[in-house]
Amino acid sequence: MAVKKSELIVQRLKSIGDGIIDDVDAGRNPSFDIRTRALSNVHFDEQTGIIRLGDEAQKRYYFNVGQAKKFLQTLLIAKQIKVLLEQEQPALSIRQLFYTLKHDIPGANENTFDEQEESDPLIEDVELMTDALREELNLIATPNGVLSGPMVVEDKTGDVLDFTKMGSAGGAVPPIVEDDYFHIKEMNADYILVVEKYAVWNLLNQSKYWKKNNCLLMTGKGQPARAERRLLARFGEEYDIPIYVFTDMDPWGYYIYSVYKYGSINLAFFSEKAACPRARYLGLSVKDVMNFDMPRSSWIKLNDEDFKRIEEISSYPWFQNDYWQKELADLKKFGYKIEQDALVSKSIEFTANNYLPAKIENKDFMD
Amino acid sequence: MAVKKSELIVQRLKSIGDGIIDDVDAGRNPSFDIRTRALSNVHFDEQTGIIRLGDEAQKRYYFNVGQAKKFLQTLLIAKQIKVLLEQEQPALSIRQLFYTLKHDIPGANENTFDEQEESDPLIEDVELMTDALREELNLIATPNGVLSGPMVVEDKTGDVLDFTKMGSAGGAVPPIVEDDYFHIKEMNADYILVVEKYAVWNLLNQSKYWKKNNCLLMTGKGQPARAERRLLARFGEEYDIPIYVFTDMDPWGYYIYSVYKYGSINLAFFSEKAACPRARYLGLSVKDVMNFDMPRSSWIKLNDEDFKRIEEISSYPWFQNDYWQKELADLKKFGYKIEQDALVSKSIEFTANNYLPAKIENKDFMD
Repeated sequence: MAVKKSELIVQRLKSIGDGIIDDVDAGRNPSFDIRTRALSNVHFDEQTGIIRLGDEAQKRYYFNVGQAKKFLQTLLIAKQIKVLLEQEQPALSIRQLFYTLKHDIPGANENTFDEQEESDPLIEDVELMTDALREELNLIATPNGVLSGPMVVEDKTGDVLDFTKMGSAGGAVPPIVEDDYFHIKEMNADYILVVEKYAVWNLLNQSKYWKKNNCLLMTGKGQPARAERRLLARFGEEYDIPIYVFTDMDPWGYYIYSVYKYGSINLAFFSEKAACPRARYLGLSVKDVMNFDMPRSSWIKLNDEDFKRIEEISSYPWFQNDYWQKELADLKKFGYKIEQDALVSKSIEFTANNYLPAKIENKDFMD
Repeated sequence: MAVKKSELIVQRLKSIGDGIIDDVDAGRNPSFDIRTRALSNVHFDEQTGIIRLGDEAQKRYYFNVGQAKKFLQTLLIAKQIKVLLEQEQPALSIRQLFYTLKHDIPGANENTFDEQEESDPLIEDVELMTDALREELNLIATPNGVLSGPMVVEDKTGDVLDFTKMGSAGGAVPPIVEDDYFHIKEMNADYILVVEKYAVWNLLNQSKYWKKNNCLLMTGKGQPARAERRLLARFGEEYDIPIYVFTDMDPWGYYIYSVYKYGSINLAFFSEKAACPRARYLGLSVKDVMNFDMPRSSWIKLNDEDFKRIEEISSYPWFQNDYWQKELADLKKFGYKIEQDALVSKSIEFTANNYLPAKIENKDFMD
């Protein structure tokens, strides 16, 4: 890499500033373009299988009573990010960035920012203006995931992390998983298995499932945070190995899978870079109930909220395919949900020794 | 260690069963004793500075219409734990244990368990009956914490974990931190610093605060889970080094500190083994506002919920000391809260280079 990504972003931020100076010099109303983040500009791109933000854009003007403060605030954020990147400062949370920017405006009876709700959407605007992820702007969200398996990473700190030697805890997912922070030196896994729940991950990790099956075993502890999504996207782009997602058999589990695979509406721009279209749904699925003879005692009646959520996700464009329409209809008809934890009711080893191997060997998954 | 803790627990479980057989043989109504977990039996032990469960106990009888099912369920749980320990099975979550036990009772139109709400309190009963932590019964809760610093651990897996080489993510806290799972081989830290929020931990970790100050740096990501509490208790018992807790300046932050130090009411039995009476409150405290000239823009008005919570914790016996009564009164009078994140409004390095060193050097903490 000739130019570091952070230098590229600094250049982009500088050119935004230059554009505004040009506006001033030319006597124009200073402005910059921002891609619209409204739902109307979000679509599911069937070709790539990713939720995307469209190209619709708006101008934000300085001489505009409704936009002047936002204009100023956006530039304050852009400037601060530029300074922090140039000074190679540590990464901040978006709340910390807010605190570095919140202050009185001398002479005015006004603060730069009053609430974090003001700065958060403008940070997203700066992401769009620079075509960079928040993490590339050196801003973090709290990660939750852990993983183990045959992968060696050179961390930004210089530490070399061998994910076969991370003990009972597994290796923690760091807040930034971009290549300059989390450089994957070796990937020797035959496949990647993402597990919804920590307790199931922990069971598999204890039995060294990842070693016996030479795979990478990861969990995002329920709904994944940004870092786990982005990491899975990197795996999908950089390594030509199967990626399986294993969740509860309920609309919440299905949705978690969809977030990994397609992205999410509210973070459509992030989804372009954090979706993993090659991810496959391994289970639990309704036909597993019969195929694996799941005991009646492990079934839990679907409640009103579950039925409502089934209707909701049935209507999402990325669930408009034969597999999911059938799966969702089958679930509704069956009337029960089953958690992945419940596989222990067969036996404690059942998940590792029977269920997962059978599903993978028989290619019994949603492709 | 002559006898493994798990063998000791198996013996205790066996002797409970033997007692019941003795009852049957002697024609007595089979029963066992369970310490009462009601609030009436929870007290703050001022001598040790720990929230404790008292000695009040009740008998649970087999021939008692109101107790027969619970009697059976308790023994089912005790038996399952015994079997799992004897077979050296992997640790389960309490939900997974529930699933291994939930089934039809042949011949009866009844399940052993219907909801996890039935098994959870009985697991706590078995903890009390065996005087063992849930984790020693091979049951886990999801951990959340990460830590870094000069400590080397030999994990149950055989992996040797050097917490100075855990990269940007730090080392994850495993679900079980008992010595046979998480054997601390080397502890070279001069002190331990527990930070409430991940973003603040992350800032300190990036600047290698733990290296410059030769300390162990840990976060439980807000309210700590069982594993982080138990780990801090172990540090407090096993190493004669200072332990500091650093939280937000608000009743929620103060309470997090108190959970680490004194324990909590709803897990009073756990608190006996997971409290860390040597923990000291480092800050943020109300006098820091003036001493460190915290900018007005970082103050957040206390809301009704905050005031209510201040009243609540003011009345807890473990906050009945001069330091905390003054701190809580000062906070109320000041009328604002300040988050630990807000220290970046001074400068990004302020927390690591100014605030923490000054507090520790000047012994400016609650002892």
